[in-house]
Amino acid sequence: MSSRAFSKTIPLRKPISPALRRYVYFFGGGKADGNKDMKAELGGKGAGLAEMTNAGLPVPPGFTIQTEACREYMRNGGKLSPEVDRQMREALSRLEAMEGRKLGAGDNPLLVSVRSGAQASMPGMMDTILNLGLNDSSVEALARRGNNPRFAYDSYRRLIHMFGDIVLEVPKRKFDDAFEQQKKRSGVQLDTDLDTKALKQIVEEYKKIVRQHTGKDFPQSPLEQLSMARDAVFRSWNNERARHYRRMNQISDDMGTAASVQCMVFGNLGETSGTGVGFTRNPSTGAKEFYGEYLMNAQGEDVVAGIRTPLPISELDRTMPGIYQQLREITSRLEKHYRDMQDFEFTVMEGRLYMLQTRNGKRAGRAAVRIALDMVEEGLITKEEAIFRVEPNQLYEFLLPRLDETDAKVHELTRGLPASPGAAVGQIIFTADDAVKKVNGSKKSSVILVRSETTPEDIHGMEVAAGILTSRGGMTSHAAVVTRGMGKCCVAGAGEIHVDEKLREIRVRNHVLREGDWISLDGSTGRVLKGKLNTVPASPDDPELKEFLSWAEPFRTMKVRANADIPRDAVQALAFGAEGIGLCRTEHMFFAEDRIAHMRAMILATSEAERRKALRKLLPMQRSDFVGIFRAMAGLPVTIRLLDPPLHEFLPRREDLMVEVALLEKTNPRSPKLAERRNLLARVEELHEFNPMMGHRGCRLGITYPEISEMQARAIFEAAVAVAKEKIRVSPEVMIPLIGGPKEMANQKKIVQQVAEEVFKAEKLRVPYMVGCMIELPRAALIADDIAGVAEFFSFGTNDLTQLTYGFSRDDINRFLPSYVERGSVKQDPFGALDRKGVGRLVRMATELGRQAKPTLKVGVCGEHGGEPSSIEFFYSVGLDYVSCSPFRVLTARLAAAQAAAKEKLGYEGGRTK
Amino acid sequence: MSSRAFSKTIPLRKPISPALRRYVYFFGGGKADGNKDMKAELGGKGAGLAEMTNAGLPVPPGFTIQTEACREYMRNGGKLSPEVDRQMREALSRLEAMEGRKLGAGDNPLLVSVRSGAQASMPGMMDTILNLGLNDSSVEALARRGNNPRFAYDSYRRLIHMFGDIVLEVPKRKFDDAFEQQKKRSGVQLDTDLDTKALKQIVEEYKKIVRQHTGKDFPQSPLEQLSMARDAVFRSWNNERARHYRRMNQISDDMGTAASVQCMVFGNLGETSGTGVGFTRNPSTGAKEFYGEYLMNAQGEDVVAGIRTPLPISELDRTMPGIYQQLREITSRLEKHYRDMQDFEFTVMEGRLYMLQTRNGKRAGRAAVRIALDMVEEGLITKEEAIFRVEPNQLYEFLLPRLDETDAKVHELTRGLPASPGAAVGQIIFTADDAVKKVNGSKKSSVILVRSETTPEDIHGMEVAAGILTSRGGMTSHAAVVTRGMGKCCVAGAGEIHVDEKLREIRVRNHVLREGDWISLDGSTGRVLKGKLNTVPASPDDPELKEFLSWAEPFRTMKVRANADIPRDAVQALAFGAEGIGLCRTEHMFFAEDRIAHMRAMILATSEAERRKALRKLLPMQRSDFVGIFRAMAGLPVTIRLLDPPLHEFLPRREDLMVEVALLEKTNPRSPKLAERRNLLARVEELHEFNPMMGHRGCRLGITYPEISEMQARAIFEAAVAVAKEKIRVSPEVMIPLIGGPKEMANQKKIVQQVAEEVFKAEKLRVPYMVGCMIELPRAALIADDIAGVAEFFSFGTNDLTQLTYGFSRDDINRFLPSYVERGSVKQDPFGALDRKGVGRLVRMATELGRQAKPTLKVGVCGEHGGEPSSIEFFYSVGLDYVSCSPFRVLTARLAAAQAAAKEKLGYEGGRTK
Repeated sequence: MSSRAFSKTIPLRKPISPALRRYVYFFGGGKADGNKDMKAELGGKGAGLAEMTNAGLPVPPGFTIQTEACREYMRNGGKLSPEVDRQMREALSRLEAMEGRKLGAGDNPLLVSVRSGAQASMPGMMDTILNLGLNDSSVEALARRGNNPRFAYDSYRRLIHMFGDIVLEVPKRKFDDAFEQQKKRSGVQLDTDLDTKALKQIVEEYKKIVRQHTGKDFPQSPLEQLSMARDAVFRSWNNERARHYRRMNQISDDMGTAASVQCMVFGNLGETSGTGVGFTRNPSTGAKEFYGEYLMNAQGEDVVAGIRTPLPISELDRTMPGIYQQLREITSRLEKHYRDMQDFEFTVMEGRLYMLQTRNGKRAGRAAVRIALDMVEEGLITKEEAIFRVEPNQLYEFLLPRLDETDAKVHELTRGLPASPGAAVGQIIFTADDAVKKVNGSKKSSVILVRSETTPEDIHGMEVAAGILTSRGGMTSHAAVVTRGMGKCCVAGAGEIHVDEKLREIRVRNHVLREGDWISLDGSTGRVLKGKLNTVPASPDDPELKEFLSWAEPFRTMKVRANADIPRDAVQALAFGAEGIGLCRTEHMFFAEDRIAHMRAMILATSEAERRKALRKLLPMQRSDFVGIFRAMAGLPVTIRLLDPPLHEFLPRREDLMVEVALLEKTNPRSPKLAERRNLLARVEELHEFNPMMGHRGCRLGITYPEISEMQARAIFEAAVAVAKEKIRVSPEVMIPLIGGPKEMANQKKIVQQVAEEVFKAEKLRVPYMVGCMIELPRAALIADDIAGVAEFFSFGTNDLTQLTYGFSRDDINRFLPSYVERGSVKQDPFGALDRKGVGRLVRMATELGRQAKPTLKVGVCGEHGGEPSSIEFFYSVGLDYVSCSPFRVLTARLAAAQAAAKEKLGYEGGRTK
Repeated sequence: MSSRAFSKTIPLRKPISPALRRYVYFFGGGKADGNKDMKAELGGKGAGLAEMTNAGLPVPPGFTIQTEACREYMRNGGKLSPEVDRQMREALSRLEAMEGRKLGAGDNPLLVSVRSGAQASMPGMMDTILNLGLNDSSVEALARRGNNPRFAYDSYRRLIHMFGDIVLEVPKRKFDDAFEQQKKRSGVQLDTDLDTKALKQIVEEYKKIVRQHTGKDFPQSPLEQLSMARDAVFRSWNNERARHYRRMNQISDDMGTAASVQCMVFGNLGETSGTGVGFTRNPSTGAKEFYGEYLMNAQGEDVVAGIRTPLPISELDRTMPGIYQQLREITSRLEKHYRDMQDFEFTVMEGRLYMLQTRNGKRAGRAAVRIALDMVEEGLITKEEAIFRVEPNQLYEFLLPRLDETDAKVHELTRGLPASPGAAVGQIIFTADDAVKKVNGSKKSSVILVRSETTPEDIHGMEVAAGILTSRGGMTSHAAVVTRGMGKCCVAGAGEIHVDEKLREIRVRNHVLREGDWISLDGSTGRVLKGKLNTVPASPDDPELKEFLSWAEPFRTMKVRANADIPRDAVQALAFGAEGIGLCRTEHMFFAEDRIAHMRAMILATSEAERRKALRKLLPMQRSDFVGIFRAMAGLPVTIRLLDPPLHEFLPRREDLMVEVALLEKTNPRSPKLAERRNLLARVEELHEFNPMMGHRGCRLGITYPEISEMQARAIFEAAVAVAKEKIRVSPEVMIPLIGGPKEMANQKKIVQQVAEEVFKAEKLRVPYMVGCMIELPRAALIADDIAGVAEFFSFGTNDLTQLTYGFSRDDINRFLPSYVERGSVKQDPFGALDRKGVGRLVRMATELGRQAKPTLKVGVCGEHGGEPSSIEFFYSVGLDYVSCSPFRVLTARLAAAQAAAKEKLGYEGGRTK
């Protein structure tokens, strides 16, 4: 095969008048009308078939009816122009001439498949018809020719079944029932045990079903079959699961599918026939080894169905060494041609090899890195291209243990949202206290904390648990956000699970699991598995990862920081390459067991003096946290956010207190506890808010109770000075949350500056610092120029900004967002990838306004989006100075930021095909 | 007096180099350096004194130190340039020469007052010193000269008291205590009963206090007194109450005050002296009558203090007819000069009249209209000017009854927020059910519903109550919003009141009021009064109002609609001049007693079929409401908003159910009610949201449950067609709430259109209609161009838009907003007047983007801001087609919209001075 073969393109891509439009593209005999660049017209499959044909591969010939025909079909209410039919018949004639056979006629009838294939990959979403061309007479010819009537009738019944279901819209169940009845009548278990007679009876039964259901006979004209099948494939573009899939993957509804008509080849014509799938490299490890499996005397669907166990492809070398060699040679040529690892399908028909499909293969994260490195070494791709061969999210894998799926019989109970990746294996436990007790009792114990949803009060339990499972809440629920921050495995919102904390059991479908039962979580897929599976540990220091990153990183211009609240997280973030802390949430420090009492005392205080007293208790604790973080970061910037959540989050739940008080009133009205609980309830009532997300929180607390901001600023600067005295550089950035205007900012900045000066004076040492703010209220973005006048940096809190811009409460969003995304009312979960159009507009506006007012303004982002690749690309385009994300997303963010910059600099994505 | 006198101006307004700057402006002898246009430099008082002097009025002479001196004083940390002192001494010399007396010296010592006065009126907020120039020797001279030692020593002790308090910052209490002790020692009750000896003792006592507190003697040097008093007046610009007042009234902190030094005149020199205040017309009724009161032998503060009862000014004609005539002549000249009703202060000293102050008088709403009409008739002002002589909010008065304050001894219990104006008198009642029971029991009864806060479940009680009083909630709380909509008096958030619903009593300070006790509310001022006061009824058909509006209305280009949910409100709105319904909230219809059961059934339904069944029950009820509204509006546009609030608002409160279930579990675990309550609680839990404002509401309901939108659309179109068949024109505009993007809009629009077509087909009649949406999410504003592609109109929901832009929950905002506004972190309550900078930017952006995409797009506003004058002015500037507000604000909105347009067209505000 010469490389020229790949450059034969037919430049026929601009729209032409309908009558002259080319609807049908032929492929076969080493030549194709299309090529790999024509995915828009021919779909991925059609373009691939054309390309493979051009490359001289043994591809069964055929033709592709292009997507424009599908679009016309949809536009015109299910009608096609006669021109499409004319071109299709012409192509069919050419195919028949090339093969020397007639569609569904003659002694050696030509059979074809009709397959869907869109520009974007939508695996299994649309329909396909096989064995087309069979009818009452051609089935006999087929039987005679191969001397295999069983095969012929089996093919025929498959055609009627598929055609009946997809084209004629006969309920599939009818065919299945008839088939099962026949098996019963014949007294067999397996489909393959049915003999020719039984299959003939099934064919008759099927034809009867078609007649009953449609009022017409199963079409005997092969051409009619072909036209009908083509139309059905076009219609399948709009079937429910295809629409759903497009929504999920942001694929436009307007593109349509192509329909590829191709000569059938059979892998089930006896012991010299077979079928298989494979990869040019190991998709799990990336090892350069021919990898795959096959079945002799079988059709493709048999491999997938799992009734027979396929053989490893190396066996083929033994049984059909010539075919094996040819396959290896072809696939290695394919890999060189596409310059990427290939995922291919092949069929051997009576000793002859046919290639049915090839495409760039999906691979795991580790494999992606290894393949990229190997291919550079092999000279197949450049280092620049290699950068794009790994999806940023795939780097996650290096940081997390995995379930060892080979280890045990994997029994999937249910699936939830893959809220925080990794694997966790442990015993079920229902409360945070029990989790702590259990783990303290035996350091070897491993628990999975199972809750309907978690709250900040569960933190201590979440910290000791191996993993978290919740039945409610979405990708941005408390459980999800906190565990991602901890780098701990979490499956959230597993709606099928009913958590009964009273009975201490969970029910899921027919299973009941009790406290102490073992389960395993796969946080990367959301799977919940029964039993105690083995795990494989993480490998963040992987030398291959390091080499790969050494190519990508030089392109990166945007800094990557981590969100870390405690010294341990800071150390970890640094190990993953974080260039600072972009968000240190001080409130998480207050939930610790030894602190919450003081926090509550502060909240329940009725005077400033009392409040200050409680704050003085918290000061040394908070200071020591900051000391740890400053030491760990050794001069890298550390952005510390002042207290943000509403105060009632630190108190018991209002409704629990109400119930407690009501019960005490009824049962023990003189109990001294009643008075105490009533008092507490009164304060909780005072703090109660209908919409706490929009309530008395953020800088609003610091403005109402300046002594809180003062204490926090004091803890920060005393810690900074203490560390500086150890000759370690420090670079604190004090961040004020929930700023809505310049006066709020000025108010809090003044407090911070005053405290800083006091501390510097008292300690006789100054350290450099900055005071800036979160941009998380739409108003802050809208008047960012005013705010930039008093703020030294901005950090976008894109979670809250998204909540307020959409009017979505992320605590509640699971009520309707899933059905919303499904119905297409919202394109995708805006808490996953940043909404560029709405929220992004505010981000861009605020950045521009802020820098107009203050050109030196440092601007970053510390919301969840800071670790999401497509959002990172957007932030790069806006010109942010840094993104900050959870430590476990730092690697991902580094690569995403590098890719964004490289893409702009190189002007390409290194030929990456998705 | 010639009119030329008023045009003598000294054009010295541009800044000049400090040394050459004119700091001091003299007035006296019929000539002044300044004039009325120099308020920025001389303050309102200084400019007024200059103007009056120029007008040839008998004004005590003096000079004004301009505001720039105050600004320098603040900038330079309490220092003034020597130039200020030099100019002041020069002016003092001129004054002494003119008077032929010396400050605080000689046989006839000159005494002066030093008064503050800023550009914007800040009545009583800053400090004033009287009797300056008295010392141990001049007090004797003064005593000798008037042969009135008592007067002299009384003046001296007043000076030391005022000077000690304001200038030397001696605690006021010290002087008060000493004074009371002296009264005790002398055995007298009234200040005026103290004799000379006692006053002398007080002076000595006071001087001792000064010495003790400051370590220095009371300054005996008159010039030193003057400099110190001047500086204290400058400092008083930044005292706490002045800063607070500026915040409340949006006055800049940077302007500073002027200090006017003026010869003292005394009204307390015997029976030929006196002092008084007056208006050139009656400020309550507007009648053209000389109106005021005075006291003989008294100082100004005696009139205000209320120790002696002043006499009506007509009495002066009897006692001092010459003075009376002179005063009438002067004030009528003043009114003609200022071309507005004047509020003046005068003093008669030993038979000679002095004018101390004159300014445009504040007046009530009715009076404002009458005065404007009269002045046009008198040829004093033009009709165009008259338009601006009435504040839009003042028109309210015509629509509401008032308390008759003369009727009874007014006893103010406390004050809350003036949430909804008017007057209400009734008996206290604590629950909505009791209110209904009581009013149903006796139609004559009048009740005030008193609640800590109201909820939608209280609606039936609010409807029958004469007025509403709440102890919690702000200007936009449920009680406030609903009552404003009803045009019913409401005092909200009266924080001093403790409502004890169990004991059925309210406690406020030392008072306890019980169910059945009479109270009176003044919703225009927020006063809560004890007892049963009389009221004066409303007068919306006032012929004077009509004539006034006939001048203003032709300027108006922006339409004014009303928010009305039921036919009765629509009828009322129309009577007030509404040009359509801008917001008909359909959910309020569901809270009615006969409907809520069906609504609950709909919510509790577990299947679409069940839901539809319940909806079918609601359909005819809703339809009949729409019929009533369409009939009332007779072809004017009616914007109907589909269901907006989260469903749990229609169910019992979650926490109440939790308590109920817990108690039943404890006390009666087998009760069948327990199961029922548990089921209900389960559903309420399902619907529970942490932040319902941002939850499953608005179009999100209609998308999840399309059958709700369908039912509502059906009710609308069946009603529209039914009314059209009565030959009454209809113009429904269906409005989709909480739209965040074009797909949501397209989804709901399709449902509405389908139902419309079905109804039109079935009824064989078409009516014109539109489908549009609320713009209340920031995202909707940001991508308004996309949304305009599918919406036929926009209506800004500025309440929610403000909530989300600020991240303020208006249900909770009272927790911190008042202290926020006070501390200056927020300029003003953004739910009162629209925040032009942030929210306004979104409004402008959305209007522009929307009209770019669809030039014919109709754009209006239906939030509370639609009835607020300054917001209306902004909406006019943005080019909105209409504003919509509660019926009781329609008059206000009409005038505000007319003024906004007239201001632009005429290029002036008709010389209105505030």
